[in-house]
Amino acid sequence: MRANNVFFGIRRSLSLTSSILSPGKILNKSNMNPNVVKMEFAVLGPVASRAGEIEKELANGVKKPFPNVIRANHGDAHAMGQKPITYIRQLVACVANPSLMETDKSIPSDVIQNAKAFLGNCGGRSAGAYTQSPGVEIVRKHIAEYITKRDGGIPANWEDVCISSGTSESIRNVLKLFINDKNRKKVGVMIPIPQYPLYSASLDEFGLGQVGYYLNESSNWSLDEAELERSLKESSEKYDVRVLCVINPGNPTGQVLSRENIETIVRFAEKNNLFIIADEVYQDNVYSRESKFHSFKKVVTEMGAPYDKMEIASFHSASKGFMGECGMRGGYVEFLNMDSEVYMFYKKMISAKLCSSVLGQAVVDALVNPPKKGQPSYELWKKEGDAILASLKERAELFEKAFSKLEGVSCTQVQGALYAYPSIKIPAKAVEKARSLNQEPDFFYAMQLLETTGICIVPGSGFGQKDGTYHFRSTILPPSDLFKEMLKRFTKFHNDFLAEYK
Amino acid sequence: MRANNVFFGIRRSLSLTSSILSPGKILNKSNMNPNVVKMEFAVLGPVASRAGEIEKELANGVKKPFPNVIRANHGDAHAMGQKPITYIRQLVACVANPSLMETDKSIPSDVIQNAKAFLGNCGGRSAGAYTQSPGVEIVRKHIAEYITKRDGGIPANWEDVCISSGTSESIRNVLKLFINDKNRKKVGVMIPIPQYPLYSASLDEFGLGQVGYYLNESSNWSLDEAELERSLKESSEKYDVRVLCVINPGNPTGQVLSRENIETIVRFAEKNNLFIIADEVYQDNVYSRESKFHSFKKVVTEMGAPYDKMEIASFHSASKGFMGECGMRGGYVEFLNMDSEVYMFYKKMISAKLCSSVLGQAVVDALVNPPKKGQPSYELWKKEGDAILASLKERAELFEKAFSKLEGVSCTQVQGALYAYPSIKIPAKAVEKARSLNQEPDFFYAMQLLETTGICIVPGSGFGQKDGTYHFRSTILPPSDLFKEMLKRFTKFHNDFLAEYK
Repeated sequence: MRANNVFFGIRRSLSLTSSILSPGKILNKSNMNPNVVKMEFAVLGPVASRAGEIEKELANGVKKPFPNVIRANHGDAHAMGQKPITYIRQLVACVANPSLMETDKSIPSDVIQNAKAFLGNCGGRSAGAYTQSPGVEIVRKHIAEYITKRDGGIPANWEDVCISSGTSESIRNVLKLFINDKNRKKVGVMIPIPQYPLYSASLDEFGLGQVGYYLNESSNWSLDEAELERSLKESSEKYDVRVLCVINPGNPTGQVLSRENIETIVRFAEKNNLFIIADEVYQDNVYSRESKFHSFKKVVTEMGAPYDKMEIASFHSASKGFMGECGMRGGYVEFLNMDSEVYMFYKKMISAKLCSSVLGQAVVDALVNPPKKGQPSYELWKKEGDAILASLKERAELFEKAFSKLEGVSCTQVQGALYAYPSIKIPAKAVEKARSLNQEPDFFYAMQLLETTGICIVPGSGFGQKDGTYHFRSTILPPSDLFKEMLKRFTKFHNDFLAEYK
Repeated sequence: MRANNVFFGIRRSLSLTSSILSPGKILNKSNMNPNVVKMEFAVLGPVASRAGEIEKELANGVKKPFPNVIRANHGDAHAMGQKPITYIRQLVACVANPSLMETDKSIPSDVIQNAKAFLGNCGGRSAGAYTQSPGVEIVRKHIAEYITKRDGGIPANWEDVCISSGTSESIRNVLKLFINDKNRKKVGVMIPIPQYPLYSASLDEFGLGQVGYYLNESSNWSLDEAELERSLKESSEKYDVRVLCVINPGNPTGQVLSRENIETIVRFAEKNNLFIIADEVYQDNVYSRESKFHSFKKVVTEMGAPYDKMEIASFHSASKGFMGECGMRGGYVEFLNMDSEVYMFYKKMISAKLCSSVLGQAVVDALVNPPKKGQPSYELWKKEGDAILASLKERAELFEKAFSKLEGVSCTQVQGALYAYPSIKIPAKAVEKARSLNQEPDFFYAMQLLETTGICIVPGSGFGQKDGTYHFRSTILPPSDLFKEMLKRFTKFHNDFLAEYK
């Protein structure tokens, strides 16, 4: 992906001496934003790009040893064939084209009622008007009610909630608050390793310092207090560490943190004056019988003083759960104990982009204000959602077991989220081969897998991992038929790979 | 809006000595991103906030000398009662809920055909799947065809186009490419004064230097070469100026640049190695008979070498024109002559946020691939669009004339865009009064207008203006009945204001 500096160096110097030769560009790699050059986002990185090329080659009749690409790289349920929830799409269609509510007699009355309530909160009763920058008031209120119910009655204030076009945007907006070139030392942000690369990419882009703490693979990717202490201590000379990011349930690691583990983290953060970024977008994706989702908000509130005064930003999304409405771009952040002046500045900052997608906000409404028991849409909504969650739970076990059966591969329990994250022993000869190509060994493995089988996964090096360990992330989204096919191709490739490099 | 530093200073120092007193927040004004504290976005600034409060007060029965707020501050057509174009909403509803295409026999066949073509380009044929980060391929192709047609056959390449959730996002993404702390001097960006405050806000947020050049009010806000030279020269010691932003048709100034004027700008930019940001979101909003929209791309191409190799980013939007679909958040950027490596990094950068709103992308498709003559949706689409544009043209003249009749107010011709931007002579006593309140005189005027009449406009100080001149921006969106009412209230207030401060 990184192009040749020398070439650009040559081209630039030529442009200074001769305007006949291809002139240098005003904006080029050598003078553009160096943070943008540096940042990497592996989920849509070179492996995924190559997958797209292969799809085009297949469409153009190029012969391959496989008929299709299997995209297990991206937590994108609908792309893998998951069907949308009927209620959501009816609601969005009514909000987009309100005349349907007059003409289409098949639309359930609760859909119409909710669409009308939503539009009643929009300028000119149209989804084409800008909303207030933090979002439509009624949706923010529904979010607050949803959080209150989720946390067993601990109150949420709708004015502490801001909706965004996808959760990534909210996470990035919160991280931006910590950029401070006037700070004595560079501001550091603690992130798990492995992590979802939105974090590393955004920290690089914003010039914030990445302070990685390793998750403990041997106890199913839990957080370890000693490791948090080590990470903080070792970085404290270089960075002014002010933020702790936790992803729960974990991406790419699929763990669900226990309540005790969260309490440990909270005490660590309190002791060290850290602002907590709680990425809880997979809160509805919990499969393991022994696991339960605990929100950071609930835990700190129940821990009492001084923890209940901690500053936390918690995130949720319409892209995950059983809805999987990624393309609708609906997410939100709830702030807990945020300084009121900082919050005012936050809202001013987001106002420069006016507002988030109004139809995305309608999808968030469907997430937090679903049909109630007794309403006409309820039964179908319940049936569709339950079926998806049951199927995801089944696939979580299926993937974990199947990967663990491969030689040299072991997979921790997929307790939640949408991913299996197996570790893989890559033979020394393959490591050597990869290094000779200037590639990470698991990148080499993933690229070979793609070229040989059409299966697209993300190498562990894109998320970070302990030196000398290798992993890959596969979503659990391929439906069972496709999964069987995937497993067949994967197993053959893996065995051949081991044989070749043993 | 800016809170008291001293208070925070005190609170912070207390927190160091006593944890019993209200403790300081981990993130507070004194240690948060100073650029976020500094940035201002006047369109949704204090006047607009106060308008929101007044609306709530009215709803709660508080007595005011007016029955309602008239929001002339924001280019938000639907909020002002403009009805959506039928074709767009039918298309979006079908994309959101494809089952409608089976059940609703009233949907025209071209809507169905376009919705199916769009969904055929989506993962799993669902608007719930992520698209490629730059957007759905078929929409990018339609955009390229649209630009090609607009520019009389000058070819556009679909791969040079990236769609975003609103145009503001694309503009900010392009500006980000120029952030470079490693640069010898701070990077400077030339922006018009007056300007749309997205620019000043984003430059502040990104730590880029704002290099203002004054538009020439006496020649209907045209750009003046001598003024561009002055601005560049005076800033060159402080900044490494690399970008020239031009807004055409102008916001807030409503001018449409002549072709000669654009050629002058182009030669200036070429001579000084400036990357051009051409904000052309109002390209479909041209009202004056003598005016015509000329894209920067067409002008540089027709000027030939060396101008046809200039680097330009040009923007368009579904929020303006006759569609006014602001809430749908659909916009795009086309890059001309962008360095291929820089473009690769750009696409990597936007990939961290995955993709823009898929339904917003469908609205962009409606903008660039409207019904064709002979298709079932064509007649209605044409009738609706023409009626809106005719009505906007009428209002452009109405507003310009009406404001010019007020004593001490003069308004340049509203040739395009959605705004009148009159200059106003504020009496010395009112200026004095404003200064005593630590307010800009036109801010004081706008706030008094709001409190007295419910009319919400944006003071000229939010866009920038020559010292000692005062202006305000009013949209031309209030429909004619509301406009009559607005003018009545406005005239009385204005005369009373002059009488009070004469």
